[in-house]
Formats: sequence, structure tokens, C-alpha cells
Amino acid sequence: MKILVVGANGQIGKHLVSSIQDNGSLEAKAMIRKQEQASFFEELGAETAVVDLEDDIESISKAAEGVDAVVFTAGSGPNTGKDKTILIDLDGAVKTIEAAKAAGVKRFIMISSFDTRREAIQAVSSSFAPYVAAKHYADEWLKRTDLDYTIIHPGGLTNNEGTGKVEAAIEVERGEIPREDVAGVIVAALENKATIGKEFQVVGGPTPIKNAIDSI
Amino acid sequence: MKILVVGANGQIGKHLVSSIQDNGSLEAKAMIRKQEQASFFEELGAETAVVDLEDDIESISKAAEGVDAVVFTAGSGPNTGKDKTILIDLDGAVKTIEAAKAAGVKRFIMISSFDTRREAIQAVSSSFAPYVAAKHYADEWLKRTDLDYTIIHPGGLTNNEGTGKVEAAIEVERGEIPREDVAGVIVAALENKATIGKEFQVVGGPTPIKNAIDSI
Repeated sequence: MKILVVGANGQIGKHLVSSIQDNGSLEAKAMIRKQEQASFFEELGAETAVVDLEDDIESISKAAEGVDAVVFTAGSGPNTGKDKTILIDLDGAVKTIEAAKAAGVKRFIMISSFDTRREAIQAVSSSFAPYVAAKHYADEWLKRTDLDYTIIHPGGLTNNEGTGKVEAAIEVERGEIPREDVAGVIVAALENKATIGKEFQVVGGPTPIKNAIDSI
Repeated sequence: MKILVVGANGQIGKHLVSSIQDNGSLEAKAMIRKQEQASFFEELGAETAVVDLEDDIESISKAAEGVDAVVFTAGSGPNTGKDKTILIDLDGAVKTIEAAKAAGVKRFIMISSFDTRREAIQAVSSSFAPYVAAKHYADEWLKRTDLDYTIIHPGGLTNNEGTGKVEAAIEVERGEIPREDVAGVIVAALENKATIGKEFQVVGGPTPIKNAIDSI
């Protein structure tokens, strides 16, 4: 199974491409914004595709041709202007969804934010609200397609070493999770078709990742 | 017919409330953000409702109770931060749409931007792209409801005096239009049920507003 990782050069994306390449039955195609980001992925033996998420759907669709699943883990990040929130976190996500459809790729995994319900837009601080709104509308768009989607809502992301253990359910108590474990959760979701059509929150916890995802 | 004008204190909004109050068969309810904005509308004999578009759907829905149509003509404006683009132009619009549904108001008129097709997001300058994206998704959301919607796409807005004449069609050549004439177009659309389920571009032109809208 070949996986297009959109946002491969991000912090979760790099862990994810590594995890995929370490897994005997999966291979990664890293979608990156700049050619100079390619060497990291080539050293892992992964294919790369240079596409900017601000390009059109067709460019993203070409990168998605021939893969079996698309994972969206791109984010505008805290260091870009607020104008990028809507262009990357919402419009970039929607273009990736439409590109998957155009390329005939049914399986789609969205890395969302912990709580993207409508109520959460009002509940968070005003500086975080635009990001939550962007993720809300991206998730809504995906749920209204006929793609085989899974939406993953991780808790507060850390750079701690992965523990291989999490707590995952439709709703869990807010907590942190190492980015490396989020990558593990994505791989487990890719390998479990029972996660299709579902969304779940995930934080650090006591259960081995595969078991936690199998019980979703 | 009573019309809730969302964004009444904006430049189009003020013209619109005036036009509605001048029209014998219509009356306006001006939705405004601050109590101190009310006197302008009270002097026109219009009802007011103080609601912030960043409040929840329920607050907006209360303002929409008992009206026959909702017009969304709010905008974050060029002087607010880019973070308001997604919170007002997209999320504020969607909340107003959902509020109309909740209040049982079927008729909804959206004042959009001249070109909100997906291609337009890439085509405009990068500083304008977040606004176009926000309007694109707001229009998309509205089109996927079962409301009796009309989406109006005005050209470049000016503060010139209205001429009472426009050119309106699904596609027209880009041009300018006085805000006062946009208000006239909204009133004409409210009075013509044939505009339901339609969207059109409108700029200054040779045709009296009522005739132009009746030929949509």
C-alpha cells in the first residue's frame, strides 16, 4: 500500500514517513513544498513529489495518482501569518480532498485538531479561533464526501519520544501526545479498515497503539 | 415582509436599511454589533437587534425569529486583522445561515464577492486570497442548504451616488458599482422570487435595476 503524505516535511510528517518506511507492507510518497527538502525522504527510501499546497487541485492530484491512501498532516504552523490559516489549513485540505477524489484515491486520513466542533471555535482563545475554524470546515468538507475517511483529533503535540501507548476514543480527556505516537496512530488507522468513516480523539495513555485503534 | 439585515452598520447595510424603509411593502430589522450604532436605524424607523457575529448561532437565531428573510451583508473589512476573515466572512456567514434555518426563515440573500469560484482564490493577489477563500466557502455552504437563497456578486464597490441602473447576469465583465445600487439590487431580489436558487454578478450598467433583476 502506497501512502501520499501531504505535509511530509512537518514534524508529524517526518515521523510518519519514517514509520511507513519501517513498516514492511507500506511505502511512502512524501509531498513536499521545496526540492531541497527531498534528501531527508530519499535517505529513507521514500518517493517524493514537489507540490505547493497553494497550487491548484490538478497539481496535487498528479502527486496522488497511483497511491492507495492520502494522509493530510500539513499545517500553516504558528510562524506564518493568519492569512495562511484559511489558505493552508482549510483550502489546502479541501484541495487535497478534491485531488484524492480526482485521482480516484478513496482512502483519506485527516490529521485534525483536538476539538473541531462548532462550539470549540467560540470556546478557545481568540488567537486560536481562526485555526479551529479552518480545521472545523476542513473536517466538515471531508465528512460530506464519499471518501473512506478517518479523522484523527490528537491532543497537545509534544516532541517527547514516542511511548507506543495512547488513549483513543470519540471523546477522551484533554492531554498531550508525542508527535511520534501520532505517526504510529496514523499507521494503525491505515492498517485497520474499521476506522473508515470514523473520527476519534487521541492522547497519551496506557494502551498499545494497535490495540487502542482496533477498539475504536 | 420583514428583513433582518446582518451587517446593517456597514456601508451597504446602511443604504439597504434606508431602501427597505423607503419601500412601502418591506420593513427592516437592523442587526448591529453595538448599542451605540442603533440611533441611525431608529431614526429610519427600523427595529434593531444587538448581536455580535462572533457570538453563537442561538444569539443570531433569536434576532432572526419572526422575520421573512435574512440578508447577509457583513464583512470583516480591510482594517481588521486577517484572523477576522475566517471568523466573520466565513464563520459569521455560516452561523447566520444556520441561524436562519433554526429560526425557520427560508429566504436568504448573500452579498458575496465578484468572483468566488475556486479558480479565483488562486487568481487574485495573495493579500486578497484569504478573503476570496472565505467567501467561496460561505457561498458553498449556502448552496448546500435547502434555503431559498440568492447569491449576489457585486463588482468593485464605490461610494458614488446610485444611478439606479446596472448590468446583471451569471457572468458580466468586471466593473464598478455604487454601494447604493447594490442595496437597490438586494431589494429587487427580495421582491422577485425568480431569483431564488440563483447567483449573479452585477456591475454598473444601462438597465434599470428592477428590469435587470427580473431578467436574471
